[in-house]
Amino acid sequence: MIETPYLLFLGDAPDQLAAKVAQGIKDWRPQNAVGQFRMEGCKADVGLKDLTLAEAKELGAKTLVIGVANRGGVISQAWKDVLIEALGMGYDLASGLHNLLANEGDLVAASQVSGGTLHDVRVPNVQYPIADGKKRSGKRVLAVGTDCSLGKMYTALALDEAMKEKGMKSTFRATGQTGILITGSGVPLDAVIADFMAGAVEYLTPDNDADHWDIIEGQGSLYHISYSGVTLALIHGGQPDALIVCHEPTRTHMRGLPDHALPSIQEVADLALTLAKVANAGCKVAGVSINTQHLSEEDALAYMAKVEDEMGLPTVDPFRQGAARLADALANL
Amino acid sequence: MIETPYLLFLGDAPDQLAAKVAQGIKDWRPQNAVGQFRMEGCKADVGLKDLTLAEAKELGAKTLVIGVANRGGVISQAWKDVLIEALGMGYDLASGLHNLLANEGDLVAASQVSGGTLHDVRVPNVQYPIADGKKRSGKRVLAVGTDCSLGKMYTALALDEAMKEKGMKSTFRATGQTGILITGSGVPLDAVIADFMAGAVEYLTPDNDADHWDIIEGQGSLYHISYSGVTLALIHGGQPDALIVCHEPTRTHMRGLPDHALPSIQEVADLALTLAKVANAGCKVAGVSINTQHLSEEDALAYMAKVEDEMGLPTVDPFRQGAARLADALANL
Repeated sequence: MIETPYLLFLGDAPDQLAAKVAQGIKDWRPQNAVGQFRMEGCKADVGLKDLTLAEAKELGAKTLVIGVANRGGVISQAWKDVLIEALGMGYDLASGLHNLLANEGDLVAASQVSGGTLHDVRVPNVQYPIADGKKRSGKRVLAVGTDCSLGKMYTALALDEAMKEKGMKSTFRATGQTGILITGSGVPLDAVIADFMAGAVEYLTPDNDADHWDIIEGQGSLYHISYSGVTLALIHGGQPDALIVCHEPTRTHMRGLPDHALPSIQEVADLALTLAKVANAGCKVAGVSINTQHLSEEDALAYMAKVEDEMGLPTVDPFRQGAARLADALANL
Repeated sequence: MIETPYLLFLGDAPDQLAAKVAQGIKDWRPQNAVGQFRMEGCKADVGLKDLTLAEAKELGAKTLVIGVANRGGVISQAWKDVLIEALGMGYDLASGLHNLLANEGDLVAASQVSGGTLHDVRVPNVQYPIADGKKRSGKRVLAVGTDCSLGKMYTALALDEAMKEKGMKSTFRATGQTGILITGSGVPLDAVIADFMAGAVEYLTPDNDADHWDIIEGQGSLYHISYSGVTLALIHGGQPDALIVCHEPTRTHMRGLPDHALPSIQEVADLALTLAKVANAGCKVAGVSINTQHLSEEDALAYMAKVEDEMGLPTVDPFRQGAARLADALANL
């Protein structure tokens, strides 16, 4: 658990895209951030107030979150000067970078002096159990995709927001580093040891109120040969009552695999449901989420109408339309 | 790669079953072992010549393999006396125990003095790549099961033996610690980090002669919710041309999951084939392997005849009958 509120470190971000973790926190959990910290030359701005370390501390900030990708896989000395100063002022640090804070001797030393915690959210810090498959109370919905990186996290966060707006009980359950930084907790599933993957998902989604929904962030795709095992562990460990199928209609091949075509939405729905029923015989496919960022408004609406007709399921782009119709589908399941 | 030949350490095994790793080496790779080493009170005997450390060294033994389960999860002082003496004489050590040799300070110290290697085969010692899904030359067959621990390794080893007897080119590819100790190499798949599982299987089964078969040891089951992600990584990383479905007909529930019934052979065949075609569109189910150890000869033959008729596929118990018919099925695929 990462202590909130955060100060978001944007460093010397070369462009807006480099700060997408910070943007995600601002968009989905604005209450978790008191402001942003930008260095000389920073080209990103997530629309929060610029604060010094001292000003943010005054406002109660507990953790400096690295909300930006670093350049060249190196944590620069300029960054470190800020990070070490922050530790000295009593901040914890949190990062989803590939290079770990815990591998930087000077940061480790500074944290030992200050008593601050270094959170590397790519690395599991829990000894997860082997999955036992026991039925848990409460309800769970999982986002599954025709491919990787096409909007499963966005769909899950939008669904969480829509359910809360309707007064439903829900919790977004993060399974990747961005989601973990946004919400402050979760399981970095792609870094878990194979035998414990499904158990980690059970751990993440424990017994809950009968009318509470865990909204589980998906990873990979059953059809993406590099990561499909992670996806199946989510389906079997998550024991979902409902699946939302996510798709991006302009992809010409699976991400990173030029020889592999995308499956259809129907194929993913059928295969995921067959597998989900092994863990939960009552599971249903509840809706479809389309990422239409590369389509015009007109084409997007026409495409979604066609999918809705073919699948017989509510079909939305949560970015354009919100996820209220998906929340309704779950409420009426 | 573990250097052969081995001396098989049976220690003070309380019964024959405790020495099943040593028995596996003796049964499947007798040429890999010059003899067995038994301590006072050992109740196991795998049928090899009893040798001292010095005698085995004379016969060329390179590695002392711990072929026995330890009691209570502790490597006893009596064992260590032998292991340290062996290191001093120039042996490497190899172990599939849960407690690692590398975590025992006295063994590490002795190996540093002698220059010997400590092989803990449960722990990956390679940085595996992310799977790229590229088509590889050569052929691959994977054993998939209706459940865990019902004879997939045995089936694969028997198939390897039958193919060699027919003059076919084949290699057994180990994916668990027992298989790794038997053959001296492999990938401990259940201990690999999630993102690299499929890549580890690609690494294990590289390009080969067009008429060469990799016989990949299966793990888990698509229907075993604790380990199904590992199974799917084998299916997608292994890119199999053929599947053999393994089954044990007297199981009343999935291993360790009392509330989960076993799927049918047909269900596993259909689901595994659907998933396998994502990685290799030409994949086929080639045969069925039944573990009939809990059936009489008569019941076993009747059961297998029924399955053969229903599935339309060669169906054998490799323990009772050998795997020649499965090898023929692959040769004629």
